[in-house]
Amino acid sequence: MKEIAGIRPMRLWSRSAKSRGKTIALVPTMGFLHEGHLSLLRRARKEADAVVMSIFVNPLQFGPREDFGTYPRDIKRDRTLARREGCDVLFVPSARQMYPKDFLTKVSVEGLQDTLCGASRPGHFTGVCTVVLKLVNIVEPHTVLFGQKDAQQAVILKRMLKDLNVDVRVIVCPTLRERDGLALSSRNRYLSTRERESALAISQSLFAARKLIRGGERSADRIRRMIRNTLSRNGISRVDYVAVVDARELVPLSTIRGDVLIAVAARVGGARLIDNIRVRV
Amino acid sequence: MKEIAGIRPMRLWSRSAKSRGKTIALVPTMGFLHEGHLSLLRRARKEADAVVMSIFVNPLQFGPREDFGTYPRDIKRDRTLARREGCDVLFVPSARQMYPKDFLTKVSVEGLQDTLCGASRPGHFTGVCTVVLKLVNIVEPHTVLFGQKDAQQAVILKRMLKDLNVDVRVIVCPTLRERDGLALSSRNRYLSTRERESALAISQSLFAARKLIRGGERSADRIRRMIRNTLSRNGISRVDYVAVVDARELVPLSTIRGDVLIAVAARVGGARLIDNIRVRV
Repeated sequence: MKEIAGIRPMRLWSRSAKSRGKTIALVPTMGFLHEGHLSLLRRARKEADAVVMSIFVNPLQFGPREDFGTYPRDIKRDRTLARREGCDVLFVPSARQMYPKDFLTKVSVEGLQDTLCGASRPGHFTGVCTVVLKLVNIVEPHTVLFGQKDAQQAVILKRMLKDLNVDVRVIVCPTLRERDGLALSSRNRYLSTRERESALAISQSLFAARKLIRGGERSADRIRRMIRNTLSRNGISRVDYVAVVDARELVPLSTIRGDVLIAVAARVGGARLIDNIRVRV
Repeated sequence: MKEIAGIRPMRLWSRSAKSRGKTIALVPTMGFLHEGHLSLLRRARKEADAVVMSIFVNPLQFGPREDFGTYPRDIKRDRTLARREGCDVLFVPSARQMYPKDFLTKVSVEGLQDTLCGASRPGHFTGVCTVVLKLVNIVEPHTVLFGQKDAQQAVILKRMLKDLNVDVRVIVCPTLRERDGLALSSRNRYLSTRERESALAISQSLFAARKLIRGGERSADRIRRMIRNTLSRNGISRVDYVAVVDARELVPLSTIRGDVLIAVAARVGGARLIDNIRVRV
């Protein structure tokens, strides 16, 4: 596995691989890799001849009172894991290179980015869109892979790349979970044993919602209320949102119909956790 | 000369030209071509093997009370002129293709875009950035050419393409003028004979400013005042701005030093006219 820190060397590597007829897949991450990231790597290897994983904790997507400084980092471990999964290039640009002093450009997807996580994290998705467009422009991959765990992010990035006529295929990979259902996240490490136990209510309420809908429930309000009750019963009181929305436009539904996204964000201890399921009705 | 209306056919044409080792230059325009545009075409032909000119009156960059509906259009004449200058492809996408109903993405260059023309045309440069990024992503040129007449636009687009790591060379071509100094613009056609005569004060005041600076004047304030007086004496009262700014950061100067942009925007009759000069001190 090659490790590349410079933007120009990264682009040259890609150009050279492409000139030899190779297809490239990009997996953009903030590092501190878990099985979720590795599943993206594995899928990427199936989809392309060469796999680039970027690790960049993007300051632009953290709010001033968020966890940029304390976001977990372990590049040594990440390197080992990425190599083991057959990653060809680990791209690790510096913030100074990505955002030189005179950097001013912002990319946003209006409407989609002000709801759900965007409502409590102003500027977050602008930061995500901007960095992902930069990474895609640098690596010039045929395919880019995102995780369904960050559902809104995947919807926004897909739209951004389509709107801007970026010629890249987007693959969204399923959320990976612990055995008991907890969605994998680098932020799970903020949880104490007790907090981890209450956190379980998030995925459990989502599974219960799916079961209700499969059983015929069509009221989005009743689903929202059931989830909120389940969270509250398990000691989760700081709920950012419980959303039942159209999976593409992220617009709140009253009747459950079509391609539906049910998403939750809540604070458990020091962690802000998100999770979601998609149900097609 | 080939005329292409579809986004996909345009991309395929570019890819095919590039696969045959050809370099491509893109000249994005809103049509109604004048000598200024044609000078960009000529320069493009010197810089690349194949030249694509896009003609697209971009609704996104017009304000609700601006002249989108009446902006002059003459595709037949444009076609003849472009062909005569050896343009290889005229790219004429439709608004429906460029902005499908679910389009939501915006690209902006904060700071640079809220001053000068941006102050009186909110959203204008966001529209310009967004469409140019789309055009560059579709055509994938090696080189893109802009005119110095739209000085702020050129500064913003250069920064946007650099910030987003778009691998394209930017060339900014000099403003073309009528014999008497009036900067060429598609909007000059809005002027009556009398209005055209007062409009001359814009370029003349800029030339006078240059002369003063070359003669040793270093006070930006005195330059601004001189220009305003010249405009007012010639019956131009609706002045949007008279700016003496750093040519790269567009920050107002008090002392004239370095790479200086002197720019004017004013309304003459039904037309909003802009012009500028650059002076290196």
